[in-house]
Amino acid sequence: MNLKDKIREVPDFPKKGINFIDITTLLKDKEAIQYITGKIADEFRDKQISKVLGIEARGFILGGILAHELRAGFVPVRKKGKLPSDVISETYQLEYGTDTVEIHSDALSEEDVVLIHDDLLATGGTAQAVLNMIKQVGIKKVYFSFLCDLEFIQTPEKEILKQFDPHVLVKY
Amino acid sequence: MNLKDKIREVPDFPKKGINFIDITTLLKDKEAIQYITGKIADEFRDKQISKVLGIEARGFILGGILAHELRAGFVPVRKKGKLPSDVISETYQLEYGTDTVEIHSDALSEEDVVLIHDDLLATGGTAQAVLNMIKQVGIKKVYFSFLCDLEFIQTPEKEILKQFDPHVLVKY
Repeated sequence: MNLKDKIREVPDFPKKGINFIDITTLLKDKEAIQYITGKIADEFRDKQISKVLGIEARGFILGGILAHELRAGFVPVRKKGKLPSDVISETYQLEYGTDTVEIHSDALSEEDVVLIHDDLLATGGTAQAVLNMIKQVGIKKVYFSFLCDLEFIQTPEKEILKQFDPHVLVKY
Repeated sequence: MNLKDKIREVPDFPKKGINFIDITTLLKDKEAIQYITGKIADEFRDKQISKVLGIEARGFILGGILAHELRAGFVPVRKKGKLPSDVISETYQLEYGTDTVEIHSDALSEEDVVLIHDDLLATGGTAQAVLNMIKQVGIKKVYFSFLCDLEFIQTPEKEILKQFDPHVLVKY
């Protein structure tokens, strides 16, 4: 299946000069969603994943399916102020300003083997922040999965992520 | 499985007087996530669902799994300005101010049998808005699924939803 044919590119969204990778055209295709989640899950079936972390908001969609397929629990990584109980958090730098990711303090334990999933790897800033955040808990092992990687963007954060050999299905 | 034992209630979140129903404690439990998605999917396996609509953001998690389980496509219902291509939208009244839901114009067709999923049915305002929005497309049939219903909240919007016999797993 040629996945790039299923993914829509929208020029100048959310602002001029950005070519937005729109996966909604892929997700609405029932054959495509079976295909991609099977492909990603197959990469991790022998890894004893105990929790899948999906990054808000689009990372919840395939992250949820992966948790189900891998018989793991699901943990939402949310933006600041969305989670109601005690959280651990990590603030990171954006082009302008900062952003913060959070998980509940009781979401992970030292026994967990974690798969972090997001739909898109761009600068790697969010993924790097999630990694720093879960280091506060001290889990057993961590893997990464991204549906798409914008390989033409190269950053120090992405260099660090390469140590974890992230799984990517579609490369741009 | 007693699901209420798995769901956490957080008093006074996001503001005083609100008892927040926190499903993250249920989602992180690998047995619970298999159990609830099996239960919900079983209700709809014979309904020829072609698209599952998950409502941003928490509705993406189980909505994605349901789409996968039912061999349907997944369509995200998003807040205003998040979808990059042409959208149809519906604005609705909140206690203070308004909110808007959107889907891509090409997300649904007249042949679709749609399952709308959200984690929580409270006032029914969002679900009602999603219903009004998809009426603009003219789909074949619509079903609703909610993980939890706050039955002590009664509104005119919820009365209208009752015509669609929404499936609810946990009642408060």
